Amino acid sequence: MREVAVIGIGIMKWGELWEKSFRNIFSEAALNAIDDAGVDHIDSLYVGCMSGGLFVGQEHVGAIMADYIGQKHIPAAHVESACASGGLSFRQAYMEVASGMSDIVMAGGVEKMTDVSGDGATYALATAADQDYEVFHGVTFPGLYAMMARAYMKKYKTTRAQLSAVPYKAHLNGSKNPYAQYPFPIKLKDVENGVMVADPLHILDCSPITDGAAAVILTTVDIAKKLKKPIIKIIGSGMATDTIALHQRETLTSLKSTELAGERALKMAGKKIDNVDLIEVHDCFSIAEIIVTESLGLFKPGQGAKAAADGLTALDGKIPVNTSGGLKAKGHPVGATGIGQVVEIVKQLRGEAENGRQIKGNPKVGMAQNMGGSGASAVVHILEVA
Amino acid sequence: MREVAVIGIGIMKWGELWEKSFRNIFSEAALNAIDDAGVDHIDSLYVGCMSGGLFVGQEHVGAIMADYIGQKHIPAAHVESACASGGLSFRQAYMEVASGMSDIVMAGGVEKMTDVSGDGATYALATAADQDYEVFHGVTFPGLYAMMARAYMKKYKTTRAQLSAVPYKAHLNGSKNPYAQYPFPIKLKDVENGVMVADPLHILDCSPITDGAAAVILTTVDIAKKLKKPIIKIIGSGMATDTIALHQRETLTSLKSTELAGERALKMAGKKIDNVDLIEVHDCFSIAEIIVTESLGLFKPGQGAKAAADGLTALDGKIPVNTSGGLKAKGHPVGATGIGQVVEIVKQLRGEAENGRQIKGNPKVGMAQNMGGSGASAVVHILEVA
Repeated sequence: MREVAVIGIGIMKWGELWEKSFRNIFSEAALNAIDDAGVDHIDSLYVGCMSGGLFVGQEHVGAIMADYIGQKHIPAAHVESACASGGLSFRQAYMEVASGMSDIVMAGGVEKMTDVSGDGATYALATAADQDYEVFHGVTFPGLYAMMARAYMKKYKTTRAQLSAVPYKAHLNGSKNPYAQYPFPIKLKDVENGVMVADPLHILDCSPITDGAAAVILTTVDIAKKLKKPIIKIIGSGMATDTIALHQRETLTSLKSTELAGERALKMAGKKIDNVDLIEVHDCFSIAEIIVTESLGLFKPGQGAKAAADGLTALDGKIPVNTSGGLKAKGHPVGATGIGQVVEIVKQLRGEAENGRQIKGNPKVGMAQNMGGSGASAVVHILEVA
Repeated sequence: MREVAVIGIGIMKWGELWEKSFRNIFSEAALNAIDDAGVDHIDSLYVGCMSGGLFVGQEHVGAIMADYIGQKHIPAAHVESACASGGLSFRQAYMEVASGMSDIVMAGGVEKMTDVSGDGATYALATAADQDYEVFHGVTFPGLYAMMARAYMKKYKTTRAQLSAVPYKAHLNGSKNPYAQYPFPIKLKDVENGVMVADPLHILDCSPITDGAAAVILTTVDIAKKLKKPIIKIIGSGMATDTIALHQRETLTSLKSTELAGERALKMAGKKIDNVDLIEVHDCFSIAEIIVTESLGLFKPGQGAKAAADGLTALDGKIPVNTSGGLKAKGHPVGATGIGQVVEIVKQLRGEAENGRQIKGNPKVGMAQNMGGSGASAVVHILEVA
């Protein structure tokens, strides 16, 4: 397999983008990535998107985006793994370059979630769960993660304040991210004072509905050297799945797909979790970040909530988690989220994170963990400064 | 890149499968492929599906199918390129094995199209066209292909009987395919006597709405030799895109994405179109087969209709096209179609086509051409007996 590097990143301001269309927001991020990489074309395109069909009535997402970024006639693929669609897009682009099939490949992600009416977004998102055995009975994602939170909090005697520490940190970091949907800090007490969504999850425990896109450019390390770009190598890629229905899992308090994807990525990279300098994780709900940090091996089972409350995952903590603001503050345009994570890791590894968000000590190794549904899929990537 | 072969194929009876669910039909085809390959696991899964979201309210299609075929925890990706989703699935699986990332990979495809009510299927399919500039104005696929048919027939003075020759041949071949949705012959006159859908296309010019699935197993040629399976090598893979909107093309009478995908696949294979012994093409409408055979270089522009009428593409013709019965008679479960084509090519190259459908002279090289929308994407693969 050829060595592969990220040589360009493109992001845009995420939020409720009423004045921009599905194809517009993708093009904006994609053209930013092309500019950043300094290339004049791409050989192939991947677009992560959870459901163009349900959100905007548009499938054939790869072809339309190739055309609208001025690259018609190239191969273009739309890939989907629910909220892990962005991570999957990155993985497929990585494999295409590594295989020798193409030299310069864009991995993008996009979701336009606010164009649906009524409970359209909730319905669309719920199609990431088991339609026949979960959704049919009325449960949607806040309910599924609330069950995980209840099981976890009961088992480990987690306090409300520990849970609240996760969105508190997310907003603190997100307040320094100019592209975040909610770039402002919150108070710890705001979380428990917010409206209840699904007990014990209040509104600020939940990531928002977001329009947004992100894109990165991958090429071989050899070509990257010739282009004289900062070289951020992809040294590990792991993906895993689990039962789509939550009730079929062995436990609700750890995430097997994240465990396996993390192990596979670390093994490929020849690294241990202690070698990683910063991580972006999939904090779709505050409980998710806690369990994910444990399933990746950062903390022992039951220690994740306390670790967050003790500041171990803060910007200046032992292992910074979600320096971008995470899904909670940065926003969660589901198909774009996994690529947005890679954009943040690359910024940090290049030393380019804005507004005092840059972590100290010249980080060398970053990890991105992206997750679909209640953990039926997970994708983990490890990047390293060359 | 490692050499890759198909070592297992799985198909099932396509049709209106009211008694089977989305996950059931995929599992049936997938387990057939695993049995045929004689493997006890797969390392990774691709599922081509145009819109689980719109057809059955189920996204996260890779994860759910991995679970339901007994392979949870493996990496699993859902890929989409409208009606070319199956071809894309095959291409991604090919690249994953070729890259060295995985050894045994399943490329599958599935669509459950009959579970929607009213005009749900027509709406879902129309999301493969340009939602903002085509579908919004009321056109759906029969209308788009009717415009191509009108332009072609006017330019080349094509007769109604020449157009009818395509579905006539499809049903003749399909009558010998036990897995076809409509396994019976029709009379040439039946086509023009059928109800008009979009002038000049009558009902028998149009492929049907179908529930169905198909799957194949890919591995390296080295592993295939150890398994002592018939080795059908993948020697060429080409994909290309075009504008998603028909009115933005330079011409309506040829298909640029198919031209490019065909050229790329042939170049990679080191073959010319004359070296190909049989082809499965994307005959979603009778005009599509005619234009595709020209865009692939089988016939000169304007000669495709006459060639079909003269029997050049028949089972015993100069170059058999759609020995399976094509989309018209075999059925067109959109995400499965591209994999169904590969299943037919492998059967023919192995000499296993049923009911007198096997072409004579020990075919060595087969091609599958799968197309999305009105040709905004196309995927071409070339397979060869090792």
